[in-house]
Amino acid sequence: MAHHVVIVGAGFGGLEAARRLDDGDGEVKVTLVDRQNYHLFQPLLYQVATAGLSPGDIASPIRSLVAMHHDVEVRMGDVTAVDLAKKQVVVDGSPVAYDSLILAAGVRHSYFGKPQWEGDAPGLKTLDDALEIRRRVLLAFEHAEREDDPARRAAWLTFVVVGGGPTGVELAGAISELARFTVAKDFRRFDPRTAKVVLVEANARVLSAFDTGLSGKARASLERLHVDVRLQTRVLDVTGEGVTLPDGFLPARTVLWAAGVEAPPLARTLGVELDRSGRVKVDADLSIPGHPEAYVIGDLACFTLPDGSTLPGLAPVAVQQGRHVATTIHAQLSGRPRQPFEYVDKGIMATVGRASGIAQSGPLRLSGMLGWLAWLFIHILFLIGFRNRVLVLFQWAWAWFTYGRSARLITGTTPVPPPGMTGATPSKPAEPVTR
Amino acid sequence: MAHHVVIVGAGFGGLEAARRLDDGDGEVKVTLVDRQNYHLFQPLLYQVATAGLSPGDIASPIRSLVAMHHDVEVRMGDVTAVDLAKKQVVVDGSPVAYDSLILAAGVRHSYFGKPQWEGDAPGLKTLDDALEIRRRVLLAFEHAEREDDPARRAAWLTFVVVGGGPTGVELAGAISELARFTVAKDFRRFDPRTAKVVLVEANARVLSAFDTGLSGKARASLERLHVDVRLQTRVLDVTGEGVTLPDGFLPARTVLWAAGVEAPPLARTLGVELDRSGRVKVDADLSIPGHPEAYVIGDLACFTLPDGSTLPGLAPVAVQQGRHVATTIHAQLSGRPRQPFEYVDKGIMATVGRASGIAQSGPLRLSGMLGWLAWLFIHILFLIGFRNRVLVLFQWAWAWFTYGRSARLITGTTPVPPPGMTGATPSKPAEPVTR
Repeated sequence: MAHHVVIVGAGFGGLEAARRLDDGDGEVKVTLVDRQNYHLFQPLLYQVATAGLSPGDIASPIRSLVAMHHDVEVRMGDVTAVDLAKKQVVVDGSPVAYDSLILAAGVRHSYFGKPQWEGDAPGLKTLDDALEIRRRVLLAFEHAEREDDPARRAAWLTFVVVGGGPTGVELAGAISELARFTVAKDFRRFDPRTAKVVLVEANARVLSAFDTGLSGKARASLERLHVDVRLQTRVLDVTGEGVTLPDGFLPARTVLWAAGVEAPPLARTLGVELDRSGRVKVDADLSIPGHPEAYVIGDLACFTLPDGSTLPGLAPVAVQQGRHVATTIHAQLSGRPRQPFEYVDKGIMATVGRASGIAQSGPLRLSGMLGWLAWLFIHILFLIGFRNRVLVLFQWAWAWFTYGRSARLITGTTPVPPPGMTGATPSKPAEPVTR
Repeated sequence: MAHHVVIVGAGFGGLEAARRLDDGDGEVKVTLVDRQNYHLFQPLLYQVATAGLSPGDIASPIRSLVAMHHDVEVRMGDVTAVDLAKKQVVVDGSPVAYDSLILAAGVRHSYFGKPQWEGDAPGLKTLDDALEIRRRVLLAFEHAEREDDPARRAAWLTFVVVGGGPTGVELAGAISELARFTVAKDFRRFDPRTAKVVLVEANARVLSAFDTGLSGKARASLERLHVDVRLQTRVLDVTGEGVTLPDGFLPARTVLWAAGVEAPPLARTLGVELDRSGRVKVDADLSIPGHPEAYVIGDLACFTLPDGSTLPGLAPVAVQQGRHVATTIHAQLSGRPRQPFEYVDKGIMATVGRASGIAQSGPLRLSGMLGWLAWLFIHILFLIGFRNRVLVLFQWAWAWFTYGRSARLITGTTPVPPPGMTGATPSKPAEPVTR
């Protein structure tokens, strides 16, 4: 009887674990469960949200990615609970038993106790989130074209991004470029270059995971792109009309949230110790304390380093953890001892707009064009699947020379609500129109 | 005061008219109204529905396409009525006056008086239709993987396409290839090559616009792809469980509709003579009888030839009509007489699967690989925008060698309903799940 490993989540960590576990000798049988049928290259999600890439460019069907791993079975479904005592997970209401469990379910965005802000300030974690943000950003320009009142038009042309981490910085830079270059000639009644992008960050600097010098350079790059960077600023309220900041109300019809993450409710069903944002505290070998057969990896894991800090939610962390757990399970089946997990930090990087980025790796510091090229190289290198890599490179080369953003499609629930609606019920989504 | 032309619809005809009307001297001002923000290359829509292309590959933002035409203003909105007497259209509830009107609103699919079939047998006219069909086709395989009962699994693996015109033939061929090649190795509990694609056509042959020889070759190509072609067969009923044909009930969880078209309700607001499918009967110069300033072009126009037949709903017809009306309006403004419209028929073509097609132009007849290459060449040539052209060519080259279909993403309303639901409420869409 093969050792049955259930993996929850086919992100970077889950996928790596699944591939490493399948050794072809049938000793291990893997069930890889995900809510979606695709693996998502999350670091480029902001490109979909800002119409630079299409969903198909950054997502690959999970089944294709493990098609050659015959001991891996993919199941599309929603895991709603874990019973550590009975060693089973609940997938769409049905129990599935496991011998080993790898929880790699990721995190979602968090509104710091203000879940009511979500409707007016969507976050960016899934492909559907990205398409919704793209829809809102593109529709804002359409509304501006129809609006005659200057103040109301200005509100449609103000984009507030909350959170100055990599996602917030990338979104703010890309929206500013979209307005100033891509759609600059598309409208007749206003100049899209008058659009205002405001990046709000509670800390004293953006990209605080980087050292002070690089983070200052990123801020300068943002300001060159005409992004209004507001540091040490907290958002006090969000409505469909705008945001309230300490210095007053800022009218803005498009607010995007990139300010924090929290664990999904699934983590609470474990009944074990969680950290403040709901992540699961794990032992040195990534297992849940007291449950050596259940592991948590990736963004959902709270892994504490000797200095008391915890590992950040980055793709390389997830991949290395996925690999480590696969090794641990193989070791256990061969009667070898477990090893503690050690993260090999190869560095971090972020991009600001179309030709500027920062990268830091050991003593190395890159910024500007060089930082951007490093970012581009690494991201293309790790983009899943050869075809996507070539396609994305081509689209970027094209976009770089033309400032074009080809995926400027408003899809999903329908278009512009009638003029009467725009002022009246701002925070209610438009009714889908039957076509 | 410039002559104000309102164009309803930015399809092939509307877009061509807008571009031709803008002569740069400010004599004419054009308002181009469309419900969507993009122009759609409809002949390739079936490729999006079968996961071969991404939406962005076959759609371009309308504003970009006319950005250099400064006398053209784009308005995203829904035209719900036309008042020919007052010379105005109603856009999202507000009247817009015109001097000349060009109606190019297209048609939608028709269920021959059975609108209740639409939920269980979606048609393919819009990008959102294509994404819905893609979702259903891909989810059917996911359901089959979860289903243990052989009869119920077979129903998930049976795809019925109603209508043997170009769209139906293209869909049937592409779905069969998807099952037999692309996802052949993706599932563990069944062999996707056992999937059954049934093409139902009421006439005695498929692609009846072509001559008998070519249409027979297309049928042979379909059968080589294991498509079960049922000619002279009418669909008597459609439910979420399958279709009723004259010889009995065929269990099939995925039914697609490609069988007929009808004009949108907008046409009825004109109060003029319509043909059986609601298209507007036009004069020799494409104007509405009695309203020389109002023209109808493209699929919505019923243009009668001297032999009593009417022009088919094809892109070249729409483009030539758009050009003709632009010329007529310019002539009228310069005091020159109107000319009747004459269609220059350059031929028709269709494709069946990845390397077979048929084309007929004057005395020329092409089929097989040669027909497919002709089809490919013409479609790439006319695909709007250089970038899309290169991208699509690349994706096809890639897909041709690998049988891959890269856009296999299930997006939109969520995934697989819990197992209990699949048998119980087949025709009700799954509830969106909060994530």
